[in-house]
Amino acid sequence: MTRPAVILLSGGLDSATVLAVAREDGFACHALTFDYGQRHRVELEAARQVAAQQDVASHRTAVIDTATFGGFAGSALTDAVDVPKDRDESQMAGDIPVTYVPARNTVFLAYALALAETLEASDIFIGVNAVDYSGYPDCRPAFIEAFEAMANLATKAGVEGRRLNIQTPLIDLPKVKIIELGLGLGVDYGVTHSCYDPIADESHRLGARPCGRCDSCVLRTAAFGELGMADPAAG
Amino acid sequence: MTRPAVILLSGGLDSATVLAVAREDGFACHALTFDYGQRHRVELEAARQVAAQQDVASHRTAVIDTATFGGFAGSALTDAVDVPKDRDESQMAGDIPVTYVPARNTVFLAYALALAETLEASDIFIGVNAVDYSGYPDCRPAFIEAFEAMANLATKAGVEGRRLNIQTPLIDLPKVKIIELGLGLGVDYGVTHSCYDPIADESHRLGARPCGRCDSCVLRTAAFGELGMADPAAG
Repeated sequence: MTRPAVILLSGGLDSATVLAVAREDGFACHALTFDYGQRHRVELEAARQVAAQQDVASHRTAVIDTATFGGFAGSALTDAVDVPKDRDESQMAGDIPVTYVPARNTVFLAYALALAETLEASDIFIGVNAVDYSGYPDCRPAFIEAFEAMANLATKAGVEGRRLNIQTPLIDLPKVKIIELGLGLGVDYGVTHSCYDPIADESHRLGARPCGRCDSCVLRTAAFGELGMADPAAG
Repeated sequence: MTRPAVILLSGGLDSATVLAVAREDGFACHALTFDYGQRHRVELEAARQVAAQQDVASHRTAVIDTATFGGFAGSALTDAVDVPKDRDESQMAGDIPVTYVPARNTVFLAYALALAETLEASDIFIGVNAVDYSGYPDCRPAFIEAFEAMANLATKAGVEGRRLNIQTPLIDLPKVKIIELGLGLGVDYGVTHSCYDPIADESHRLGARPCGRCDSCVLRTAAFGELGMADPAAG
């Protein structure tokens, strides 16, 4: 029987690649996406298309009622804060960016853990990356290791000795290598969406096109450029 | 200025006591309650009344869309599984009870962590207890310690050296001692609700009365009995 795994799928380039890696590893992939009031809600449509293309075992979109809950406030992704534009990589380095959403990966991984318990899955895949854009505290390897240790104490799986693994196949890869990995696995990046501040555009297959100027667009465009390609989701 | 703290408030006896402890410690208390499709939804009304009586700084009820998300399934608290009745304490000991909700405390603490980041609170209070009813993996001291370690790696607070504390003032107390502690702090247990399988009753101040037979009722009734009292929320 195929082993089940839970895959956090935002609809971005990284998580689409992670899903392809998990499939290649032989897992039955249960994708989990979050509607948390993000400015770039178009990624929810991207996630649907990625999940459909990659033939997942299931795809759930969990709604987090950010407005009532109040815990995801103050970020440029969820609140009335401008998304930084036209920054080079040196400007991105160092501080925690204003696009940081408080404890977001902890909340997402907690949901994934609950779903993994329910599905009796021992593996959770997440597309965090500590190379290109290291300002997010909850993308660091030390955070992932600590979450995994906690997860094995939190759960029935842990008590019963079915070890839970948080799999981060992209954590050490620069963006160019992530794209090469995904292309080798047949990922269609034309249906992915990475932009933090998209521009509505009915002619685009997702209904919005990337701004080309936020940190996420800058990194993504540069990586495709290094490979001598145009971003298939742009334009 | 009063330091803010996030208090997980279910509306039960334990969390009402924890809230009183946090107030006594001088915190401005931001209560956080979850509507997760629990069978005992009446606890949401209890939480509202407890929060009002104890004059919290704020009270939020976050809705978790359990049906769409799917991760809280299979428990007697959320699903078509019978709540065990009339068990003595020896029958409760040992196995993980069917009232265990997968990774529930991890999800609740993750939300609390996000809210703590937003409020710049360094303390999160939770009413877990490892004495009376030790079958839940996510009530163990080792779990709490691991969550705290993870929380300090996950967050801006951790990066900036504002240490986050998960406070569990009840973790080593038997139920009788919890009630004594709360009574000493003026907690009105008549507005709390602990029963897993309440019976609708319009004459009750919460709109439902405890069944008196689930594990939670058995432990609560016995503890009030030991103190020579009737449970003020019963009947």
